[in-house]
Amino acid sequence: MKQSHLFTKTRKEAPSDEEAKNAQLLIRAGFIHKELAGVYSLLPLGKRVYDNICTVIREEMNTIGGVELHLSALQESATYEQSGRWSDEVVDVWFKTHLKNDTELGLGFTHEEPLTRAMTNHISSYRDLPAYPYQIQTKFRNETRAKSGIMRGREFVMKDLYSFSKDQSEHDHFYEQSKTAYMNVYKRLGLGDKTYVTFASGGSFAKYSHEFQTIADIGEDTIYVHAEKGIAINEEVYTDEVLRDLGVTKEELTKQKAVEVGNIFSLGTKFSEAIGLYFTDKEGNKQPVIMGSYGIGPTRVMGLIAELLSDEHGLVWSDQIAPFKVHLISINQDQKATELYDQLTSQGISALFDDRDVRPGQKFADSDLIGIPHRVVISDKSLDAGGLEYKARTNIDSEIISREQIISKLTNR
Amino acid sequence: MKQSHLFTKTRKEAPSDEEAKNAQLLIRAGFIHKELAGVYSLLPLGKRVYDNICTVIREEMNTIGGVELHLSALQESATYEQSGRWSDEVVDVWFKTHLKNDTELGLGFTHEEPLTRAMTNHISSYRDLPAYPYQIQTKFRNETRAKSGIMRGREFVMKDLYSFSKDQSEHDHFYEQSKTAYMNVYKRLGLGDKTYVTFASGGSFAKYSHEFQTIADIGEDTIYVHAEKGIAINEEVYTDEVLRDLGVTKEELTKQKAVEVGNIFSLGTKFSEAIGLYFTDKEGNKQPVIMGSYGIGPTRVMGLIAELLSDEHGLVWSDQIAPFKVHLISINQDQKATELYDQLTSQGISALFDDRDVRPGQKFADSDLIGIPHRVVISDKSLDAGGLEYKARTNIDSEIISREQIISKLTNR
Repeated sequence: MKQSHLFTKTRKEAPSDEEAKNAQLLIRAGFIHKELAGVYSLLPLGKRVYDNICTVIREEMNTIGGVELHLSALQESATYEQSGRWSDEVVDVWFKTHLKNDTELGLGFTHEEPLTRAMTNHISSYRDLPAYPYQIQTKFRNETRAKSGIMRGREFVMKDLYSFSKDQSEHDHFYEQSKTAYMNVYKRLGLGDKTYVTFASGGSFAKYSHEFQTIADIGEDTIYVHAEKGIAINEEVYTDEVLRDLGVTKEELTKQKAVEVGNIFSLGTKFSEAIGLYFTDKEGNKQPVIMGSYGIGPTRVMGLIAELLSDEHGLVWSDQIAPFKVHLISINQDQKATELYDQLTSQGISALFDDRDVRPGQKFADSDLIGIPHRVVISDKSLDAGGLEYKARTNIDSEIISREQIISKLTNR
Repeated sequence: MKQSHLFTKTRKEAPSDEEAKNAQLLIRAGFIHKELAGVYSLLPLGKRVYDNICTVIREEMNTIGGVELHLSALQESATYEQSGRWSDEVVDVWFKTHLKNDTELGLGFTHEEPLTRAMTNHISSYRDLPAYPYQIQTKFRNETRAKSGIMRGREFVMKDLYSFSKDQSEHDHFYEQSKTAYMNVYKRLGLGDKTYVTFASGGSFAKYSHEFQTIADIGEDTIYVHAEKGIAINEEVYTDEVLRDLGVTKEELTKQKAVEVGNIFSLGTKFSEAIGLYFTDKEGNKQPVIMGSYGIGPTRVMGLIAELLSDEHGLVWSDQIAPFKVHLISINQDQKATELYDQLTSQGISALFDDRDVRPGQKFADSDLIGIPHRVVISDKSLDAGGLEYKARTNIDSEIISREQIISKLTNR
């Protein structure tokens, strides 16, 4: 895309009411727009990063048998009354609204209830199980305070997968598979070496649930990491009993601040019994379906990456999720730059081409702030030196390389 | 996808409270789930059709310079008070809700106001124009009655593009381009020969707006079609003056019922003046930006296609938007069918493989109801006859063809 065609601008200062570093950076670089506290819109650069994150998540969910659907945001009271989650005293993050006939509706803060109800139309026999529907969909949560930028919003996007299984072993098998899929997501997003499967409290149907916690100073959670085993324990369940269960000692663990980037829950038959999702097993007996839920917030992950991988000059995106692979900057060499831009795009290499009539210093500063991983400058100076000036966003030094070299460098990514 | 893996089932009967044919068919075939009147969820088959429709729309919007973003659903009052559209007496389809501090919020029924406000951060000079942001996003409209299935929902998806231009001629040029892009969308969706650019009332800033109306008995609009010129006039502006403007006579026009599948509006400076979106022109003068809005409802189009192109056996999808290209049905030939399924998918041909342990009659009835355009049966009978039994969904007769022939038939679509 030509930068003259991308209508967003960078800004020197973030809005004064924005406290979170992720939102400050993303607003300054033109990735998001703040509508109100905890509610952000994705501008074109942000939409592209978001889409790339969703692609990674989708691929990993499809690999373990996930099938995508899309549930509505508007919710009726009936199923939530069955599960006991309609009351504002039980769930204090509901946004509620009304039809014209005064019927009260809620905006979905999660989707166990409506999906369980929908599945009653489709599941009746053990032959219909297992099923692994998921969606990437907007959730609404009426948080009292919203100060974490896009990491904890009042309106945000969640990938939520739900498992429907005929027995505990089928459930357990998928639950373990989901851990691998989740860790694959974080690896591909560049958070793999900082992210730990973390034991957390389980609720009525399982001793533990599992969180995926990424080590970060801004984290609101405290975890105890066993680096060698690649696992961690959330402070909330950090007891002698849990240490025994996991076969670890206090001395082996390191206390860390961390951000929860995903979680998986065994729901047992809580929702299937409340809402009436039963199936007939092989022996002809009626059984409640065993369920699990599996969540990742793509916008939360995007915010964390913006915080963690940025530097004093701005954002730093990996090849996998960058809005464009390469930032092509022309300094008074628009014709040669246009030729290279056409060549890159014809080979399927996404490029942001800074064709604007602004000072070189402005172009370089914007490029650092936006954080595209590869930067190529065409100028009289680069041509005199024999080609293009190439710099990785994460490097300080640039080098002169040829057009063939840059194409080859970017093609294999 | 293996059908055993797709967890949705077909149903003989639609829910008794569902009046609209589109929703009846789509529910029976397992494409959508009704949450409440006017609110539907997309099940996996429906999600796939929806995604395919969105791909067509996206491609055509990108072709005319559209740049995708995603605005929030939650809306503050401020900008709508500036434009005069916050009051429920002016806009009677608002869903309103509250933050915990009692701040009233609305659920976006459209997005002129927030986008105009967001653009004030990015547009200040004629150099920043034109700009053509668009989104494919969920709208909420508190309709008193909702009886048209997914064709008029309380929660539905809209592609809304907004144009920001520096002068009238730049606006007019894009407005004409958008007509072509819209007609391309309808052509690619199989509605081209029934859809007319229709003159409708214009509002304060233009004599006319334009609707895209598709001839259909279920239509709520009445239009007067000039088949030769490929245009139509909405009944609401069917006057002698309009006939003169268009150079047509009453005798040349045919009265038809039609469904509005898109509309484009010249907004002039209504929103830019109300909200304060100004730019400095070449001469250094401050000017309000000239705007337009351009809408298509992907779910509405999906509903119309379901109504118009279905037959007594069920849905009929075109190759362009079908959930899968081919429905592969095994009758006691699971091994050979699996081989063909693997070959199809490895060549990028999307196939739904009915591997279920149910009667052949059930498989054929389901296949007709789901409406995948190409059906291939592998059975003892087809193998004895020399290959596979192929039938197009729109044909009555089947034919025996070879594996190579079916691959070649499906590859070029």
